[in-house]
Amino acid sequence: MIYLDNAASTQIHNDVLDSMLPYLKEQYGNPSSIHRYGRLSRKAIEKARKQIASLINADPSEILITSGGTESNNTALRGITTGHSSGQIITSSIEHDAILEPCKKLSQDGFDVFYLPVDKFGMVNLSDLKNNISEKTLIVSIMFGNNEVGTIQPISEIAKICHERGIIFHTDAVQVVGKIPIDVHELGVDLLSISSHKLYGPKGIGALYIKKDISINPMILGGGQEHGLRSGTENVANIVGFGKACDLAKINLSENISHMKKLRDTLVQNVVDQIPQVTVNGHPESHLPNNAHFTFLGVNGEDLIIKLDEYGIAASTGSACSVHTQKASHVLQAMGFSHEQITGSLRLTMGIFNDQKEIEQTVDILKNIVEELRSVSPFKEKYSFSKN
Amino acid sequence: MIYLDNAASTQIHNDVLDSMLPYLKEQYGNPSSIHRYGRLSRKAIEKARKQIASLINADPSEILITSGGTESNNTALRGITTGHSSGQIITSSIEHDAILEPCKKLSQDGFDVFYLPVDKFGMVNLSDLKNNISEKTLIVSIMFGNNEVGTIQPISEIAKICHERGIIFHTDAVQVVGKIPIDVHELGVDLLSISSHKLYGPKGIGALYIKKDISINPMILGGGQEHGLRSGTENVANIVGFGKACDLAKINLSENISHMKKLRDTLVQNVVDQIPQVTVNGHPESHLPNNAHFTFLGVNGEDLIIKLDEYGIAASTGSACSVHTQKASHVLQAMGFSHEQITGSLRLTMGIFNDQKEIEQTVDILKNIVEELRSVSPFKEKYSFSKN
Ligand SMILES: Cc1ncc(COP(=O)(O)O)c(C=O)c1O
Ligand SMILES: Cc1ncc(COP(=O)(O)O)c(C=O)c1O
Repeated sequence: MIYLDNAASTQIHNDVLDSMLPYLKEQYGNPSSIHRYGRLSRKAIEKARKQIASLINADPSEILITSGGTESNNTALRGITTGHSSGQIITSSIEHDAILEPCKKLSQDGFDVFYLPVDKFGMVNLSDLKNNISEKTLIVSIMFGNNEVGTIQPISEIAKICHERGIIFHTDAVQVVGKIPIDVHELGVDLLSISSHKLYGPKGIGALYIKKDISINPMILGGGQEHGLRSGTENVANIVGFGKACDLAKINLSENISHMKKLRDTLVQNVVDQIPQVTVNGHPESHLPNNAHFTFLGVNGEDLIIKLDEYGIAASTGSACSVHTQKASHVLQAMGFSHEQITGSLRLTMGIFNDQKEIEQTVDILKNIVEELRSVSPFKEKYSFSKN
Repeated sequence: MIYLDNAASTQIHNDVLDSMLPYLKEQYGNPSSIHRYGRLSRKAIEKARKQIASLINADPSEILITSGGTESNNTALRGITTGHSSGQIITSSIEHDAILEPCKKLSQDGFDVFYLPVDKFGMVNLSDLKNNISEKTLIVSIMFGNNEVGTIQPISEIAKICHERGIIFHTDAVQVVGKIPIDVHELGVDLLSISSHKLYGPKGIGALYIKKDISINPMILGGGQEHGLRSGTENVANIVGFGKACDLAKINLSENISHMKKLRDTLVQNVVDQIPQVTVNGHPESHLPNNAHFTFLGVNGEDLIIKLDEYGIAASTGSACSVHTQKASHVLQAMGFSHEQITGSLRLTMGIFNDQKEIEQTVDILKNIVEELRSVSPFKEKYSFSKN
């Protein structure tokens, strides 16, 4: 099996699993218990918090541990808007549903939500932001790296614009952390979402970076864990694994980046060279090192995924989550793609465990599948597909 | 080490861990992905959902998977009250903070919260409930088994009272599921909270049973997982482990109950026989099979825990969560205990991995520690403690 869906989820690193096992076996104390078992769990959490903080150059006290990227995003938006009865939220039209859906709800609750448009590369326009930000704006939330096309936004410039107006800035960095160097101080962000399972850690755990001077309202109330900002008995094993994953990501960052870039460049080059009538989507320079997003005209992306799966290749049309709703990619729509272009899309996302040989095999298989599908495509005549 | 804090958290059963490992290793697909990796994860979740449902005789479609008991409780209270701007919530004065804190917030948000008092055994009075329930009541939430003193409430009678008035009834069954037989249909509850780590499953995962005809508003929004009621990439490994834990709990239920009862009865009998001036708290009959809660007059419970810890025994004064707030037990206060009685309290909670020998050792050690602490107690004269 060749796994090229690392934007959907990643394989847990062996060292991460090893770090978790004691907390799935003999160290089962509740971190709130005062006996030895409890203290061991507490210590493990605080070590992990340091590791998470270190990856983004935050202070451990600025790391709120959550059940994942989705909860982090919800906590940011709800945490800032709770207590207000109205106000504006600025976000972009290409956010993940974990931002768009809470925004929809906030809009129903009486808040104004402004969705910044993007260009054909999926890039937001900073003057649009400047023109729409006002004293009514409670929070700006713009994603760091897009999960479908991989476009990376100019986060530090956005932060600057927000701060000139005294507005809080959140970024959904779920696809980015562990894939490019991140320093929250240099970037100047106030809130930043992370998800463990996108960086070779376990699922169901994540974090929200909350800059020291920012205060948020908790969403889940109870025993007062996480300084009262997120109650519930801590998921100790997953927290430990998440910490370890961050530690590994930090240590191996530049090596991982160049590995993924090489794979990605090989893939894109070979696809473009060997398969006719294909476009490479997303921003040509400012993109995630592990994302390759294509449109094969005349091909149905879903058919492509299913065929690739038959040949042992795990791929995606876009966001894994959109499967629930079966709706066409709002990201590609916002980028101005036609229905036909959206339908023909394929996302291949590389990970640290992929190698050059897998990429070459993938291109060979992909080439054959695209040819096969095009030979029976209703658009066959329109594009006069030919073997090349 | 003798672990007698099973109400705080439990050791993961070996078979549970074994069931999780594939999902922490090679089966890392995102359940929303349409390729084989994704489908395997999806299948695993649906199998677990069946196992969870089966333990309480629910339909799998009635099981909402959450990040734990705290989130389940918050989801129940918020899920029913969201959309209303006012109304009444009836709960009890001995609930876990995962109910009390959301209620406090709802009260700040304009809802009326009525806290049913309890008697000295920690039992709510059904006429109090009848007298206070009205057409303004949106939800009644009464815990099944208390986490400190173990008292079990008459849940099916409460459900009946609620339903006669057409009111939704939620019960926090976190301490109970896996410890007594539970049939949601017989009980007639509408919503019921479960936490995996209290029944030999992993931490950070739980469920809310939602009866078919009850509709709730989601708290965490995003990709639409869990039929839109709880978004976020699923914690597959923990869900699988939770399912397995429920399966084991069901298979071994009567055996586990008699095992824990025997240990509990031995413990209580020996403590009462061998240590003077001790009271056994909670309801004498209607209590959890694994809970023993004592008051040793003239002794500070915290000192007791620390001493027991030195001797290798993990115990608790009450709720693990109260450690964060360092406040005196609201449960014992509600039961009418004096400050002195509250201070002298000790909770020992047995589990399936404890044995008779551990209980005997515990009594020996406890006897010595109580004697030692009483010999330096400021209440020494008052109670004229003597060796017996
Ligand atoms: C950009 C982005 N934000 C948020 C999420 C949600 O995070 P999680 O999967 O941890 O719920 C994802 C992944 O699904 C994502 O790609
Ligand atoms: C009665 C009760 N309700 C709720 C909870 C919270 O559940 P969790 O630990 O899964 O957050 C607990 C345990 O801490 C509990 O004992």
